[in-house]
Order: sequence, then C-alpha cells, then structure tokens
Amino acid sequence: VSRLFFAAAVALLASVSFRVDATSMAEVLAASKPSDWRPLDPQRTLYLELESGRVIIELAPQFAPNHVANIVALVREGYFDGLGFMRSQDNYVVQWGDADGKRAIRTAKRTLPAEFARSAQDLPFTPLPDPDSYAPQVGYSDGFAAARDSANGTAWLTHCYGTVGAGRDNDADSGGGTELYVVIGHSPRHLDRNVTLVGRVVQGMELLSVLRRGTGASGFYETAQERTPIRAIRVAADLPESELVPLEVLRTDTPEFAAVVEARRNRSEEWFKYKAGRVEVCNVPVAVRRHAN
Amino acid sequence: VSRLFFAAAVALLASVSFRVDATSMAEVLAASKPSDWRPLDPQRTLYLELESGRVIIELAPQFAPNHVANIVALVREGYFDGLGFMRSQDNYVVQWGDADGKRAIRTAKRTLPAEFARSAQDLPFTPLPDPDSYAPQVGYSDGFAAARDSANGTAWLTHCYGTVGAGRDNDADSGGGTELYVVIGHSPRHLDRNVTLVGRVVQGMELLSVLRRGTGASGFYETAQERTPIRAIRVAADLPESELVPLEVLRTDTPEFAAVVEARRNRSEEWFKYKAGRVEVCNVPVAVRRHAN
Repeated sequence: VSRLFFAAAVALLASVSFRVDATSMAEVLAASKPSDWRPLDPQRTLYLELESGRVIIELAPQFAPNHVANIVALVREGYFDGLGFMRSQDNYVVQWGDADGKRAIRTAKRTLPAEFARSAQDLPFTPLPDPDSYAPQVGYSDGFAAARDSANGTAWLTHCYGTVGAGRDNDADSGGGTELYVVIGHSPRHLDRNVTLVGRVVQGMELLSVLRRGTGASGFYETAQERTPIRAIRVAADLPESELVPLEVLRTDTPEFAAVVEARRNRSEEWFKYKAGRVEVCNVPVAVRRHAN
Repeated sequence: VSRLFFAAAVALLASVSFRVDATSMAEVLAASKPSDWRPLDPQRTLYLELESGRVIIELAPQFAPNHVANIVALVREGYFDGLGFMRSQDNYVVQWGDADGKRAIRTAKRTLPAEFARSAQDLPFTPLPDPDSYAPQVGYSDGFAAARDSANGTAWLTHCYGTVGAGRDNDADSGGGTELYVVIGHSPRHLDRNVTLVGRVVQGMELLSVLRRGTGASGFYETAQERTPIRAIRVAADLPESELVPLEVLRTDTPEFAAVVEARRNRSEEWFKYKAGRVEVCNVPVAVRRHAN
C-alpha cells in the first residue's frame, strides 16, 4: 500500500527497542524470548515438494486425529507422489489428489467419519475479544485459528488463508484425506464445520497461491497437462535430520501472543491514521520462523 | 472442496427453476430479471491491458470523487501506459505505479486530500444483519461492499478481495492515484479508513492474483525485469463502442440481492451439512455478467 510504510516496518523488525505502549507486531516478535516459540513436531509436519519449491504443512491431530493419521499413512504409502494439483479456483482454493481416480490405496483408508468439530473441553484456547461474523467465539488453539461454541461445548478450526482441508463429496463421511485443498483467497468461513480441516501451510504459500487458475467449472483444469505435478510428499520425521527445516511457531497461549493480538487491533505504525481497535481471527498472523540453530 | 458439489452448483446456474425456500445463489441469479442488473458506466470503467489479458475496474466516484477524477485524468494522459506492477505480496496486494519515480504528470495531480470516508447521508445502503469484526454496520452500496457508523454519520468502502485502493506514504494526503493496489488475499480490513479506496476489479482478477510474489520486503520485486508490464490503461468511454465489454452488475438495493444474501447466509446446496446462518461482508459476491446483447 505504501512502500515507505513497509520499509519502516522492516526496520522495526530489526530493532531491539521495545516500547510498552503502542508496540508493533514486529517489535513484539523482535523482543520475544526463545520460550515463546515451539518447534514443529516432525511427526505431524509434511513436506510437499513441487518443481517450484517446498511447501510445509503443520497438521492438527488435536482437531482431526483420524484424518491426520490417515493422511500420514497415505503419505507413507507414497500415495500422493506423482499426482498433481488439478484445481485452482480464484479467491477460493487449490486442490490436489488423484484426479484420474486410478491410484490404489494399500493400508490407508479412502474415507473416514467426518471430524468437523471436537469437544471444547480441555482444549487450550486464547479467545479474541472482538465480534466474529460466523462464530460465537473465535481465537487460537496451539497455533491454529479456531472457534468454539459454549452452547454445545464444541470447537473447530476456522477456514483462513493457508488452512488445509479434506475435500469430500456430498456425504459428510465421504472425505478421508485423499484429496486435500488449501485456502488461497478470502476466508470461506461458511465451510467451517462442513469440512474436516487438518492443518495449515506454514511455509511456501506463495508457491500455491500463484498456480494458474483453472478454466473449467470451479477452477478445475480442463486438461491433465495443466496440472502442477507433486514430486513427493514426505513426513518430516522420515527424513534425515540434516534435511529438516527447523521451523518454530509462536505460542498462542502467552503474554507475547496477547501483545501480538493487541498490536494488530491497534496498529502503532505511524502510517496508520485510524486504529481499528478490533481484529478478525484470520488477520492475526501466527508467526513462523526458522530456528536460529 | 468437492468436485461433485461444484458440478451441482454449475448445473443449477443453468436451471430455470426457482424455489421460494432454500434457494441457492445460482438459482436466484438464474431467476433474476434484466432490471435487477445495471450496466457499467463507461465513464467510470477502466480497462487495464496486460500481456496476459484484460482487467476491468469499476471506479466508485460516490466514495472518492476527487481521486476517481484524478485517476481518470492520469489514464487520459497515458500516465500508466508502459509502467508495471512492481509489487506482489502474498495474501495482501499487488501494486502498480511509477516504480522508478521518473514519469512526469501533465494535467493531473500527484497528491490529493484523503477521501477515507464520506457522509452516510443520502447514500444507498443495504445493511447485512450479521456482526462484523471491524465496523458497527456493513452492507452494500451501489454494488460495492461498504460500512457505516451511525455515531458519526460516515460511510466508507471496505477492503475485500479485488478492491482497488490508492497507495500513499505516511502522510494521509500523500496519495492521489498515481500508485494503485488491488487486494489479492484475505480482506485487510484494518486498512479501512486508512486508504482512499477507489473501486473494484469486476473482471480479470485471476490475472492479477497469480503474479509471482516479489522477494523483496513487502513483496516488492528486487529487479525491474520481474515487473509485469502494463500495456495501457484506458477509460472505457474513450474506446469505440465495438471494443466495449458489455458487463452488468447485480443491483444491491433489490429483493433479488436480498435473496442472494440469504442464499449465502444459509446455503441450500445439498453439500452443506451445517448452515452458517450468517455471512461476512466480503463473502457475498456482487455478481457481474456479460450482458446478453
């Protein structure tokens, strides 16, 4: 929007100063302690290899244990290797899977009972104070944007940019992880509780969001040649340690994260003339960075 | 998310049936009358020509009269012709302008007083019934997503996917339309009332949203070679009538539009197992189509 503004923000990121009032997100992150971050668990981290580079996905077994276990099983079978992205719908999703419906499954399952929501009991949850257009309450759980409803005691992941979900047909239990999509546009929150969400992209979104849009209905490519091939998907834990990308995610149950939320509700940067005083759940980035070592 | 679902939606679009209850958006649009649509005004329509195709922008003089007039003046000077997109920031904006700061302005102005908001008086406004994370009230005004505040009697355009704004530096009055951006990600609503919004893309978003992301700070390209050239921008009214694209926009002050909103609040398609019962302002598409003649 303004190059001057962003140049200033980048300068602040490198700054060691920390002001108690009117602190920017960059300043909060710069002042964070190592303990404010948690490393990605390699057992629930996927590396999706494209010709253009690597996309890293953090899975959320706390929300979809059966789907996540099944996706990990599919990955370990090599189910996705050599398949491709067959859909890119503008302001919506990119999607990959077995477009020709010919790939066999060995030990994993093709479909699973839906995991659209879970019990909110014993789930860590840092609520946002501001109203949400879709849910009674929204916030963050272990690094994921989420929502909950005290009326029925359930919680669920919310569709935000970069969220990964399991495509399904009309039957609620017709998904299972063989076909996965990533949100590349404005958050389609009407899909919440209609799809089993399984995680989010923590690196490489810029490789997925630029896939040429499909010209068929709903952004499906009209020819197989247009698909973006998937070289391989791997569980990080299955790779030699030397090949791991040491990412860590900002904890969302800390005072530092509360300061991030506040920095987004009231932007302190000089560029902002009007401070919203509010924030929407998909507009607080849960920061990801490379661990220093 | 599901190919079955979307195939069904496309089939409905072609259907002539109209059910009073549980109607999908596709059904509402299929049953609309010609008078439910208004043609684009060529005097406030821009054609942005890229090598990859044409992007069409509808300007909003009712919200930013001075900026819109200045942008039209810049276009008629040929100011943008031969410039390029110098920024593509993932989940945020693409931006074009005079990256090298060397282009002269003949009759237009370089900067203008900000037009961040206007009086809500006498402004058509179709409010949404659902809560918004940022504004006291949101809705639609003459085809544009907008917000208003009865406490101070102001209204403003909201940042949604495809919204076009005038970049500025730190000073509120440092914009003017020489540098313009388009939202290509989740709606950055914290920018509302901080930028003069001037319109929205009504055709060709899929050409802008796939521009390779810049690797410099804030998505700026690091070299001039990476920029996407702009062949020309033209005011539609200045073209021969044979070259005009006869687009029309669904009116937002009609019962048909209210039915669209309701169809998005409660999705009738069989695929949906959970109906949100609510909708967010950037999630109701204001339909654009080619006029039959």
